[in-house]
This record gives sequence, structure tokens and C-alpha cells, in this order.
Amino acid sequence: MTVTYSLNVSKARLLGFAKLLFRWRGSIYKLLYREMAIFCGLYYSLSALYRYVLKESQRTVFEKLALYCEAFTNLIPLSFVLGFYVSIVVSRWWDQFTSLPWPDKPCMLISAYVHGRDERGRLIRRTLARYLSLLSVLSFQAVSTAVKKRFPTLDHVEEAGLMTKEERTVYEEISVVHGKWWIPAQWFTALATRARKEGRIKDDVLLSDLLNELHIFRGNCGMLFSFDWISIPLVYTQVVTLAIYTYFMASVMGRQYLNPDKGYPGYEVDLYIPIFTVLQFFFYMGWLKVAEQLINPFGEDDDDFELNWCLDRNLVISFLIVDEMCQRHPRLVKDQYWD
Amino acid sequence: MTVTYSLNVSKARLLGFAKLLFRWRGSIYKLLYREMAIFCGLYYSLSALYRYVLKESQRTVFEKLALYCEAFTNLIPLSFVLGFYVSIVVSRWWDQFTSLPWPDKPCMLISAYVHGRDERGRLIRRTLARYLSLLSVLSFQAVSTAVKKRFPTLDHVEEAGLMTKEERTVYEEISVVHGKWWIPAQWFTALATRARKEGRIKDDVLLSDLLNELHIFRGNCGMLFSFDWISIPLVYTQVVTLAIYTYFMASVMGRQYLNPDKGYPGYEVDLYIPIFTVLQFFFYMGWLKVAEQLINPFGEDDDDFELNWCLDRNLVISFLIVDEMCQRHPRLVKDQYWD
Amino acid sequence: MTVTYSLNVSKARLLGFAKLLFRWRGSIYKLLYREMAIFCGLYYSLSALYRYVLKESQRTVFEKLALYCEAFTNLIPLSFVLGFYVSIVVSRWWDQFTSLPWPDKPCMLISAYVHGRDERGRLIRRTLARYLSLLSVLSFQAVSTAVKKRFPTLDHVEEAGLMTKEERTVYEEISVVHGKWWIPAQWFTALATRARKEGRIKDDVLLSDLLNELHIFRGNCGMLFSFDWISIPLVYTQVVTLAIYTYFMASVMGRQYLNPDKGYPGYEVDLYIPIFTVLQFFFYMGWLKVAEQLINPFGEDDDDFELNWCLDRNLVISFLIVDEMCQRHPRLVKDQYWD
Amino acid sequence: MTVTYSLNVSKARLLGFAKLLFRWRGSIYKLLYREMAIFCGLYYSLSALYRYVLKESQRTVFEKLALYCEAFTNLIPLSFVLGFYVSIVVSRWWDQFTSLPWPDKPCMLISAYVHGRDERGRLIRRTLARYLSLLSVLSFQAVSTAVKKRFPTLDHVEEAGLMTKEERTVYEEISVVHGKWWIPAQWFTALATRARKEGRIKDDVLLSDLLNELHIFRGNCGMLFSFDWISIPLVYTQVVTLAIYTYFMASVMGRQYLNPDKGYPGYEVDLYIPIFTVLQFFFYMGWLKVAEQLINPFGEDDDDFELNWCLDRNLVISFLIVDEMCQRHPRLVKDQYWD
Amino acid sequence: MTVTYSLNVSKARLLGFAKLLFRWRGSIYKLLYREMAIFCGLYYSLSALYRYVLKESQRTVFEKLALYCEAFTNLIPLSFVLGFYVSIVVSRWWDQFTSLPWPDKPCMLISAYVHGRDERGRLIRRTLARYLSLLSVLSFQAVSTAVKKRFPTLDHVEEAGLMTKEERTVYEEISVVHGKWWIPAQWFTALATRARKEGRIKDDVLLSDLLNELHIFRGNCGMLFSFDWISIPLVYTQVVTLAIYTYFMASVMGRQYLNPDKGYPGYEVDLYIPIFTVLQFFFYMGWLKVAEQLINPFGEDDDDFELNWCLDRNLVISFLIVDEMCQRHPRLVKDQYWD
Repeated sequence: MTVTYSLNVSKARLLGFAKLLFRWRGSIYKLLYREMAIFCGLYYSLSALYRYVLKESQRTVFEKLALYCEAFTNLIPLSFVLGFYVSIVVSRWWDQFTSLPWPDKPCMLISAYVHGRDERGRLIRRTLARYLSLLSVLSFQAVSTAVKKRFPTLDHVEEAGLMTKEERTVYEEISVVHGKWWIPAQWFTALATRARKEGRIKDDVLLSDLLNELHIFRGNCGMLFSFDWISIPLVYTQVVTLAIYTYFMASVMGRQYLNPDKGYPGYEVDLYIPIFTVLQFFFYMGWLKVAEQLINPFGEDDDDFELNWCLDRNLVISFLIVDEMCQRHPRLVKDQYWD
Repeated sequence: MTVTYSLNVSKARLLGFAKLLFRWRGSIYKLLYREMAIFCGLYYSLSALYRYVLKESQRTVFEKLALYCEAFTNLIPLSFVLGFYVSIVVSRWWDQFTSLPWPDKPCMLISAYVHGRDERGRLIRRTLARYLSLLSVLSFQAVSTAVKKRFPTLDHVEEAGLMTKEERTVYEEISVVHGKWWIPAQWFTALATRARKEGRIKDDVLLSDLLNELHIFRGNCGMLFSFDWISIPLVYTQVVTLAIYTYFMASVMGRQYLNPDKGYPGYEVDLYIPIFTVLQFFFYMGWLKVAEQLINPFGEDDDDFELNWCLDRNLVISFLIVDEMCQRHPRLVKDQYWD
Repeated sequence: MTVTYSLNVSKARLLGFAKLLFRWRGSIYKLLYREMAIFCGLYYSLSALYRYVLKESQRTVFEKLALYCEAFTNLIPLSFVLGFYVSIVVSRWWDQFTSLPWPDKPCMLISAYVHGRDERGRLIRRTLARYLSLLSVLSFQAVSTAVKKRFPTLDHVEEAGLMTKEERTVYEEISVVHGKWWIPAQWFTALATRARKEGRIKDDVLLSDLLNELHIFRGNCGMLFSFDWISIPLVYTQVVTLAIYTYFMASVMGRQYLNPDKGYPGYEVDLYIPIFTVLQFFFYMGWLKVAEQLINPFGEDDDDFELNWCLDRNLVISFLIVDEMCQRHPRLVKDQYWD
Repeated sequence: MTVTYSLNVSKARLLGFAKLLFRWRGSIYKLLYREMAIFCGLYYSLSALYRYVLKESQRTVFEKLALYCEAFTNLIPLSFVLGFYVSIVVSRWWDQFTSLPWPDKPCMLISAYVHGRDERGRLIRRTLARYLSLLSVLSFQAVSTAVKKRFPTLDHVEEAGLMTKEERTVYEEISVVHGKWWIPAQWFTALATRARKEGRIKDDVLLSDLLNELHIFRGNCGMLFSFDWISIPLVYTQVVTLAIYTYFMASVMGRQYLNPDKGYPGYEVDLYIPIFTVLQFFFYMGWLKVAEQLINPFGEDDDDFELNWCLDRNLVISFLIVDEMCQRHPRLVKDQYWD
Repeated sequence: MTVTYSLNVSKARLLGFAKLLFRWRGSIYKLLYREMAIFCGLYYSLSALYRYVLKESQRTVFEKLALYCEAFTNLIPLSFVLGFYVSIVVSRWWDQFTSLPWPDKPCMLISAYVHGRDERGRLIRRTLARYLSLLSVLSFQAVSTAVKKRFPTLDHVEEAGLMTKEERTVYEEISVVHGKWWIPAQWFTALATRARKEGRIKDDVLLSDLLNELHIFRGNCGMLFSFDWISIPLVYTQVVTLAIYTYFMASVMGRQYLNPDKGYPGYEVDLYIPIFTVLQFFFYMGWLKVAEQLINPFGEDDDDFELNWCLDRNLVISFLIVDEMCQRHPRLVKDQYWD
């Protein structure tokens, strides 16, 4: 589930954001400690090589290489390309969240427009609501690894009560080579049309309203599908990744301790721990990790949206709305400001 | 409440914005003076250490460290990452403001569409209006610390007249593990459907119109909820914070007074007050504080939106519209431009 | 009124934009000449101090200070923070323009939907149209200093014929502590509902259409109100202003003429007129003035929107549409391409 | 007309964009060659002055000035301000394109909703369609110099068959000081209302639909009008222009050949042709020309939208739709996938 | 087809993005290897010239030129102009994807609103659905080289069963000089109107709904058309391309090996392989290739949208929806959560 910290920063107070630095779940440390370990391993290996292994003449070569690498690290405008790239990723991430389909409105409209307190009335309403859940589970399967794990086959969908045996047969009989997740939307359309014919929906304007709501729901499912299908062009991601990785490959060499006696400018201090290089690593790599975490928000990161939770919530709520709470409201009494 | 200063800058005049520098409420000084104090404290402690405590050989180490830190401060492109990050925060902040649900339109539609000047008519209209307020208070509780303080439990909501005893019983009987704040929306739906059946709403198109308006209201409540739930990914906030804090940690060391006689470039003047470092602190830290203040706009900062005020206003106005002013307008007389 | 220059640049020709540099109204020179004068005054005072007043030893301190200030001017990334800040201001400015409410569509709908060529029909149509103007004048009062000057009290609104005496009485009798500018919208709702009851509006779908249009109008008024109420957070404006002003305070010192014989790098020429510092001042200060001018687009700058003009235009046009031109069109004759 | 090159870059291939460098129409060379000539003229005049005219002592002053100018060119962050400014211009440019009103949808709705195959039916449909064209020509007159040239007066509009003599009389009789281009929209409204009364439009919902479509069309005309009326604030354009021009004025001096024997750093080579300065000129000036070309997209640049073409197309197509093709479709036959 | 890699990055794990560097299809290597070869060829030719051909005095000129070129490479802010330019290209690319017209919703509405299980009913529904496919194929022809290759003439469209012989005759008889791809939309309008007259569509509100849906479809086709027609202004593309190419032309000279004995700063190491220059080439050229690949997303790049696939899918699915699955849904049975 997403990592929420809004309440902790509800007031801009002393060191407000600073306190967020001491979190682990979803944090930069959790995401980066492995890369960090590799980086430090490389750094100290090279350092040991220089200090203890190499002969003097070899050291001179090492030093020249280090200076050359250091010079390179200024040639790539990392912050620029990262800034633009992460902007795109963040706005896609939020668009994906706002594309999540919620059944609240369509279900409330079903409960308002599809009349009939008899069993058939209930059956129609519950089936319409279920079709929405079915529609979302079928589309989420393609989008989210977590949903795919939970519902690897149609058997699991049927078992979970989202699809009846009959529906499954019909579904499987339809043979198209292209994706079939939209089929429950067509069933919904057909069932709503039937309800209109039976007079359970009183007016064509309400039917039209209901179908529009269905298509907003279906459109959102399709949008999630599209976000998954149309990734940010691979070449853009590669450009950014290549830039960062070569930067740090140059940096692991270029920020080495060099014998201060040789007086290379910027190499006067022997720090043992290259503290600022490490911080820089956290900074740039962390920025890249923002992109890595958000590029597929339906995965299994700490900060990803849990579609399985959504599916559960939506099924429960939608049955509640169209059935138990259908056209029922508390008895009307005068409120305390009456007159 | 938010800090409004539009009128003070209605005309671009001599030193227009400069005058805004002399404000306290919601100002950079009020937000930063504590951090400033800590920073200066550290700065002068180190300075005193160098001037009065350290021995000559230790001073040399101190100087090297200072130079090294100073060099580092150029490695992190603070302005870049802040620029992009604050852009995201600012656009979320404004989106949250525009997501505030206002009951003006739905209430005016209720007053226009739900006929009947008898007591039951009034009761229906008032109840519909009250459901809107109830809906917003239930969702705001999750979003705003201030609203939560005012309405910590349902008791307080009932006491405030937003919920009747009967409604509360019904509300509490509904057992779902997921959030229940949407329930008044379903009651609204059911009550509006009843009004249509009773013929108080004359046409299905008006019912549909009314429910659409309700769902815009409910959708806005849900949007606020989402903004609270889905924070900007923690790792992004951490990257920015880490960058700023390490920058100033390096800076408190790197901008120290060093004995000018040693001729380090850039350390020729002994200023006692590191005026420009302080200004830089105001600049970068202030920019970060913009983010800190806006990231949760429903908190208790000077510049935050006061949801409690909104709730009060909305309740009063909505009763006024659906009841007192319902289908009443001043007597028609010819305007002065008639013919 | 806004400064329009589109026609002058309709073709990208030789020195196209360059010609715009010779304008005065709304220009950078008009906005900046006073700040410029102050800046130059300060500059020459300091210069005179150095050249004629100070003793040699004092001059050395002066020179050190100048060098220190000069060094500082490179520490603040002015262009970055200005770029992001002005982007926000410009997009708000345009949003405010697109939020201006225009009565053309609602009035045309009134003229189409509210039938009846008798006097009462005219009265209803004119009153509906007038309510729109009244709504806008009441909300503009809060937003624009110019409108506030023209209509300081309700007396002036009544005098201008936007409100009848009777309406004013009713308006003043409604006692709410919160803003009351939305009241004409409720009157419009009530009057439209009455017209529907009287059968002057033929169908509920038209009533619903009309009310939706009203609420778009009201929503726009509310949006302008919000833009005024929710300024860009003060702290952001302060950060930017502080940065610019300290930059130029450092710059007035740092760009001083220093005795070229002392060989300070960058101070080899004695220019008398610091031409490039002045140009830089125009550049950065001008960029800030863009923000200053646009942050409140309903003020009295050369480039601001004239709401008073809008009010006049809207009143005239709306009466014209709903009354004189109501359901009237030129006689139909065959056009010249017929067959 | 716009310069289309999408097909030439449909595949990212070897030196894909490079091929676009060899185009003339709408190219950077066509836009810049005059400025280039002036720049080179100045450059070589100064160069000749230095080489052949000045005495040794004067040369020293010249050299100092050149060095000073060169130093200045680094003080103005051209790329930044250009980046932000051009972003705004480009997004306005595209918004203007998407605001172009197209009569396709309203005309198809007219053909579908306004029944009657008799002459009066045709007359009504054709007149409604013509009003759309009239509306656009009247608003385009204010926006586009090309349209203004073609239709300098109402005589020309009448001659072109867009307005009948009668309509013109009525139009001219309406006396308002404010713009009158919206009048055909009101006629459209009145005529559609009449068609509804005569029963040619069968239902109020269709009338409402039609009027909404009209107002989208009118709104787009109004939007174009607004884009023309509300330019990007003059001061912003001036800031950018001033920055570029002073940059190149400094650059024409600062990049001069200076006697290499004097050993000024960066002046070691005598190139005769300052190739890189010229390329830089192309780069920055070209970037500015992007803005200059797009700021008024209805002018007469190679890349501008041809509104006259639009008017012609729209008139032809709209008569075709509402008259010839009205409610006619090819005979229905089974498609080849039937069963 | 687009290159999808979302699943590979569903979790931010160790070296997450790094793994994407080892892909070929749609990769930076595949796009760049030819330019790379040319660049290296040039580089080594120059290097060979310097090392083996030139005489000492010529070498000095070569060295001066190299240093001059190297100095130039810092003058052009490549990353800035690329950042802004690529932002525009990426947002256009995504807008184009979201403008793809999908027939799912209109077809479902056809199946719901157009009643009649007789042959004529089927015929009308299938024809309406086919018109949508026809509309898209006619507009895609102009946009996509791949579609144009598949359907070079109307013969091919007819052969593919998208157009009947009769329709083609009618289509060809309509003589307008402007594009005719919108004609099927008018046929759709006429046929839907006929279906309404025959009573197969029960209510005008449904007709209006259907036509609105058609126009969303048509509008999307038109939007794709516009994106193709209105390219990003040529001059902007030229500015960016010119900048990149001159950068690397300067760079191929400026980064040459120069005799280290001459002690030019930055030329101390003889690397044989200019590894970092190559990486920089990958970085900047790769960034440009992002733009090159996305600027026309309907071409034949690895990452382009396959419109032919869309056409096939849409035809199959739309017949399925309006015919086979029309108003049919699985038998209603109680779901497993019933009571």
C-alpha cells in the first residue's frame, strides 16, 4: 500500500521534513542500500588497490585515470535530464491513480434507477454491480502482477464469485484474438437494455445516464490498460539510466583518494569515508529510484497502489449499495435547526 | 486561514513586492526563525572552536575540512531539484483547493427541483442539504487535523446537528471494514428517488441532474481523501530534504572564517556575520518551506485552508438556500433601462 | 486595459520583436524606471564615496567588500527560481482570464427558452439577465480595486440600475456572516422555476439546461473570488523577492569601479556607466515585474483586465439579447449559392 | 499554410532530423538571413576598424572593451529565460489551433434534427449553416490580417455570399459600441427556436443539443478573439528580446579577433570567419524566432494557419452537409462479413 | 508495435532500470549505432591525420583548432534546449495516443439503442458500425505510412470489406477539393436519423446520445489528422538539430588526442578510445532520438502505434458487439454472496 505521511507534515514546523528522514518503509535507504553496498565495495577495492597493490609507476597511471574520470563527471547534466524525466513519470503516476475505476457512482445510479423490490429486481441490480467488478478484475489482471498472482486463471475468478459458471462458458465461447476484458461491459449494456424494456428503468434518459456511467468505468479500465501497454519510450529510460550509471562509474574512480603529497587540486584531504560522494550517490540515485518506483504503480513496491485491496473493497461496497441499502434511507425527522 | 495579499499588489508599483517582505504572518521569517537559530548556533560554535580552542595543527585540519566542505556545496544542484519538486507540490496544492466541495449548486438545484411547500417538502429538502454537509464532515475528518480535533467522534457530529440519532444508529449498523464516509451519498440517492416517486420531482431528467450534482460533490470529497491518502512518494521528499540538509551541513563548515593570512581564495574577509550565507539559507530553506507548507494544505499552517470554516459556512448557506429562500425571489418590477 | 501587440508581430520579419522595444505603455521601462533611478543613485553614491571620500586604507576594505559581494552574486540561481515562479504566475493569470464570466450564452438561452411576448415575458427575461450582471458586480467588488472604487456601496449598485430598491431590501434582510454575493443566483433559480411553472419554459430539460448555464456563470464568479482569496503562498513570493533584492544589493557594491591599477580580475576597465549591470538589472527586475504585474490581473496596471468595461459591456449586450433581439432574426431569403 | 514534415520523419533513421536542415520554406535560414547579414556586417566593420584603422593605443582600449563584453555574455542566462518563454508561446500556439471552430458537428446535427424536405426546410438549414460561417468570418476579421485583407468591409462579406442584404441592414441597425461579431449566434438561436415551434425540430432535447453545439462554435470564435486581445504581457516579451539583443551586441564586440600575440586567453586563433559565434547566433536567435513565428499564428508566416482556407472549406462543406447530403445515405446492402 | 517493459520494472529492485540497458528492440543502440559508426570513423580519421600525416607546424594549427572547438562545446546549453523540446514532443506523443478513436462505446450504444432483431435491424446496426471503421481507415490513410501502404487506394478499402461498391460510387461522386474522410460520419448521421424515424431508436435523447458518441469518434480522427498536419514548427526542430550536430562536429575535433607533452590542460591522457566522448554522444544523441522516434508515432519505428492492428481489432470487435452479442447476456443466476 502507499506510504502516507500527510498527517506528519500537516504543519510546517521546526525541521518538519527532516523527521521524514528517519523512516524505513518506502524510504530512500530501503530502496538504495543494495546499490550503495555495491558502490562502496567497488570504491574500497579500488582504494585498496591504489594504496597497497600498485607500484609507483602504476599509481601515476591510476592518478591520471582518476583525474580524467573526475573531469568527465562534469560533462553530463544529470540533474537536467533527471528533472525532466521524473516530471513525466510523476505526472503519469498521478494520472494512473486518477484513472482507477470506482464503482460508487454507477452502483448508486443502479440502485436509484433500476426499480423492483422483487427477487428479479435484486438479481438484475446485483448482476449489474457484479459485472463492474468482473470488468475491473479482467483488466487489472493485465496491469498488475499482484492481481495476476491472485487470479492467475479464470478458475480463480469464478471461485471468487465474480463470475458464474454460465458466464464463464459464454465468455470462453467468444473467440477473438484480441483482448476480451471488455465483454462484461457489453453484458451490462444488454442487461440494462433489458431492464428498460421490462419497465424497471422508467425513462430512456436514465438508461442513457447509466450507460454513460458504465463507459466512464470501462474507459478507466482501458486507460489503466493503456498506461501499462504504452510505456515511456524505452530509449528515454535508457538514456537516463545510462547517464546515471556512467556518472557513478566515472565517479567511483574519480573521487578516489590520491596521494595528497602530489598536490592534485581537490585531492588534498584523505577522508577514508568519501562522505560527500556517498551523499551525492543518495541524491542522484534516489532521484532515479523515484522514477523506478513510480513507473509501474501497480507493482509490489511499498508505495504502489494495491489493486487487490481495491477489488475487495469495490465488490463489498457495490453489493451493499445496490442491494442492502437500495432505496433505503433513515426515517426523516426534523433537524435541530428546524425553525 | 490563508494569507491574502492580492490587494496589496494590485498595481505593479515602486518596490511592489518589496513591501511584502515586512510581513510576519505566513512569512518566511516566521517559518524559518527556529531553523535559522540552530544554524547560527552551530556556525558560531564552530567559529569559536576555531578561533579560541584549537591548536595550530588542529586548525590546519579544520581548514582542510572547511575547504573540502565548501567544494562539496557546488556538487548538488539544489535549485534544480527544488524547482521541479516545488512545482509538483504547488500544482497539487491548487488541485486540492479546486477539489473543495461546495454545496451551492446542488442546494440551488434541490430548491428548484424538489417541489412542495408543505412540511414534508421542507423536510426532504432540508435533509438532502444536510446529507451534503454530513458527507463532507465525514470525509474531512480523515483529511484535516483541525476537523478531527473538532469532531473527534460521531457524538460530536450528532451534537452539531449534522446527523440525527436515528441516522447514527443506521450508520453504525452498516458493517464494512472499508471507509464508510460515502454512506450519506447513498441516503441522498434513496431520498431523491423517493421524492421522484412521490412526484415532488417532476421529471426523470431532473432527478438525473440532481444525482449528477451529488456525485460531483461526493467525487470532490473523495478527491480530497485521495490527495491525503496518496502522498507524493516518500522517497522524492526524502531526496529533496536530504539534499538541502546536507548542503547546509556542509555549508556551516565550509563558510567558516579562516585565518585570512593563510590566503585561501574566497576567505579573505573576516565578516563576523556571514551575511550572504544567511541569505542563502533563507533562500533555499525558504523554498523548501514552501513545499512543507503546501504539501498538506488542510493542516494548521497560517496559509492552510480552514475546513472548519467551510463546514460552518456550507451548513448555514445550504439551509438558507433550500428552505428560507426556496423558490422565492423579489417581486418583479421594471428595471430602469426598460424602453 | 491590456496592451495588445499581436498585429505588430503577425509576421516574423526582420527585427520583429525588436520593434516592441520602443513602446512605453505597459513596457519594462515604465515599470522599472523608478527602481532603476534608485539603483543608479545608490551606485553612484558608493562610487563617489570610493573615488573622492575614502582614504587609502578604507579603500582597501571597500575593495575587499566589493570582491566579496561580487562572489556572492554567483551563489543564488536567480534565473531558476524566477523561471519556475513566473511560470506559476503566468498560468494563474491566464486561468483567471478564462474564468471571466460572460453572459452571452446564458442570455441567448434565456431568449430561446423563456417564451411569451407579453410584458410579463419581457420582465422575466430582463430580470433573469439582470441577475447575471448583479451576480458579477457583487463578486467583482471583492476582486477588483477598480470595481470597488466605482461601486463602493450597494447604493451605487442600485443607482446603476443593477438592483431594484425591492431587491436591495430583500438582499439586506438576509443575514449571514459569510459572503452574500451568490444570492442573485438563487433568485435566478427561483425565477426560472416560476417561469417553468407558468409554462413559459416548455420542458424540464430546458430548465435544467438554463440552470446549468447559470451555474457555470456563478462558478466563474466564484473562481475569480477564489483566485483573489487564495494567493500564491506568501512565502514563495518572499523567497523570490528576497533573492532578487539581495542580489542587486550585492551587485550595487560588487560591480563598483575599483582602481584598475590594483589588478583585481574583472575590474580592469573604468566604464563610468556600468552598462551591463544596468542591462542585467533590466533583465532580472523586469522578469520579476512580469510576476508583479500579473499576480493580480484585476488591478490598475496597464496590462490588467478592465472589469468595469466588462460589466458595462455585459449589461448592454445581455439586455439586447434577451429583449430587443429576442427570437427575432432577419427574414429568410435564398443565399447566392442556392442550387 | 503550415509546414508539414511528419512524413519525412515517420521513422527514426540515420540522420533523421539532419535531413530537415536542408529545407528553405519555414526554415531558420529563411527567418534569420537578414539578421545574420546585419550581424556579420557589424562584426566585420568592427574587425576592419581594429585591424586597419586604430592606432596601437586605441587598440588597447578596443581590446579591453572586447574582454569586458565577452565577460558580460556569461552573465545573462539566455537559455533559461528562452526555455520558459518559448514554452508559454508554444502552448498558446497549440491552444489557438485547437480553438479553431469547425462547423462539421453542428452542421451534421442541423441535418439530422431539422426536418422537412420542402423549400422552407432547406432554407432554414442552409441559413443556420451560413450563420456559422458568418459568425466565424466576423470574428476572424479581428484576429487575422489575411482575413482582414480579404474582407476589409461588410461589403466584401456580403459580396462573398456570407450575408444577405437584409441581414446586413439588420446588423448595421444594431447600435452597440462593443463588438458585434456574436450577432449571428443570436440569429441562429432565434431561427432554431422558430424551427422548434414549427415542429421541424421534434423535441426540446434536440433544440438544446443544437444550441449547445452553436455555443461551442461561438465559444471557439471568442477564444481566438481573446488570444488576440490578451497578448502575452508586453513586458515579458521585452525582457526576452532585450536579453537576446544585448547578448549579441556584447557578443559582436566580445568575439572579435584580437592580436594573438597579446596572449589574451581564448583569443589565440585568428579565424577570419567566427564560425561558432555564427552558429550560436543561429541557435539563440532561431529559438527566439520560434516564439516570433508562433506568437501570432494567424499572420502570414510560412508556418501560420490559413484562416481564409478554413473559411472557404467550412462554407463549402457546411452547405454540402446540410443540403445535398442531408439525411441521405447509400442504399443498405449486406457487408461481406455477413454471417 | 510499442515496446512494453512495465512488467520488468513492476518492482524497484536492485539495479532495476539497469537491466533495461540490455535490450535491443527499440533501444538506444539500435537507433544510434549508425550515427555512432560515422562519428567514430570521423574521429579516428582525424586522429590518424594528426598522429601520422601532419608535420609539426601543421600539428600546432591542428592543436589550436582542437582547443578552439573544445572551448565552443561549452557555449551551447544543449541540455536545456533538449529538455524543453523533448517535453513538448513527449506530451504531443501521449496526446496522440489518447486521441486514438476506439469504437467500443459507440458500438455498445448502437447495440443498446437500435432495436429490431429482424434482418433490417441487423443491417442498420452493422452498417453503422462499419461506418465507424470506414471513417477511421479514411483518416488514418493520411496519418500513417503503414496504413497508406496497406490501403493505397479506395480499391483496397473496398476489397477489405470496409466499403461497399455502392458507397464507393456515392463517395466518389461527391466533389469537393477539400478532404472527404468525414463523409462516413454524415452517412452515420443520416442512417441513425432514419432509424429514429422508423422507431427503431425509441427516443430523441438516445439519438442525440448516439450522435454525440459518433462525433467524439470523428473528433478523435480529426485530431490525429491535425497532429499530422500541424507539425511542431520546423524552425524549432531545426534549432535543436543544428545545436546537436554542431556540438558533435566541434566535439569530434575538440576531444582529439593531442600530444600530452605539450601540456594542454585536459589533454594529459592518451586514451585511444575516447570512452567518455562516446558516452556523451550516446547521451545527447539518444535524447534527440527520443524526439525523433516520438515526433511521428504512427510511422514504422519499433515504438510506434500500429494503426493497422487497431483497424483490424476495431472491425472485428465492432461487428461482434453490434451483431453477435447484441442485447444478449448470460442467463441471470444468483451469485454466491446472495444473502
